[in-house]
Amino acid sequence: MLGRAYDQEACPAARALEIVGERWSLLILRNAAFGGISRFNEFQRSLGIAPNVLAARLEHLVAEGHMAVTAGAGGYPEQRHREELLDFEPGIVALSEWGDRWAYPDGPTIVYEHDRCGGRVRSVLRCERCGEVPAVEDVIARQTEVFAQDKKRRRNAAARPRRAR
Amino acid sequence: MLGRAYDQEACPAARALEIVGERWSLLILRNAAFGGISRFNEFQRSLGIAPNVLAARLEHLVAEGHMAVTAGAGGYPEQRHREELLDFEPGIVALSEWGDRWAYPDGPTIVYEHDRCGGRVRSVLRCERCGEVPAVEDVIARQTEVFAQDKKRRRNAAARPRRAR
Repeated sequence: MLGRAYDQEACPAARALEIVGERWSLLILRNAAFGGISRFNEFQRSLGIAPNVLAARLEHLVAEGHMAVTAGAGGYPEQRHREELLDFEPGIVALSEWGDRWAYPDGPTIVYEHDRCGGRVRSVLRCERCGEVPAVEDVIARQTEVFAQDKKRRRNAAARPRRAR
Repeated sequence: MLGRAYDQEACPAARALEIVGERWSLLILRNAAFGGISRFNEFQRSLGIAPNVLAARLEHLVAEGHMAVTAGAGGYPEQRHREELLDFEPGIVALSEWGDRWAYPDGPTIVYEHDRCGGRVRSVLRCERCGEVPAVEDVIARQTEVFAQDKKRRRNAAARPRRAR
């Protein structure tokens, strides 16, 4: 476990890892987002995962609001788990590209392609205002007021004496 | 620990999480990439991390080739840890955006801005050929020959009887 100092860090990237850092969860979300997989037995077959583990991970993702269960279509009796996490796709692509660069010297294991033109799809940073893809040194991370409030709240919670509860 | 079935998955996104999934490592890389931090005591002060933990994480990142130690400049006697991981920035931004959307209902804790024009910088998927930012359903994940080879190698390693060693 990480110590108290870490708990006082309001880092959205770290929060994202808390959600997808459990690696089966990442593979489930990947197969849902890119494989179009939505049924329990499809997840099981595609991942070779034990049913009890799969059920636990899906339940957790649904309970946390990251996936939703909807009624089966076309007469299928199975639960359908439809992902509502399409906005995580840039994250999966960015992680994939980086993992491929650092862990697979023989080249990428997975490439993302644009269905319409066949071009390679990559994760990039883009400025909303000028449309430029800025150089890394031209990107500034700025903490917002929400960050400050969250940090204060964490500090206060850590400092609160137990007898006061 | 994850079971054998997971070991047979060649997933670059999962590999990336194996590297940065240890959360102090992520915060170290974040501060190196966006905070311009390079010295041991700067990391320690900015993160509030115990010196022995910080030393262990930095050593690991250097040993794995994700950071490099260079000679101190300007007469500073400290070790300098310069990150060579600038290409992880799209990953950090993508994770941050997603973590902010899902974990912080009051709004983002960190925003990334373009130094030149002040615009908001976001992580997007872009097609290298046509320049379009494709809709999620138009992005296809394709496994490469490297993926197939890696999977075969993992299967063979798992199937190899122990007495043959």
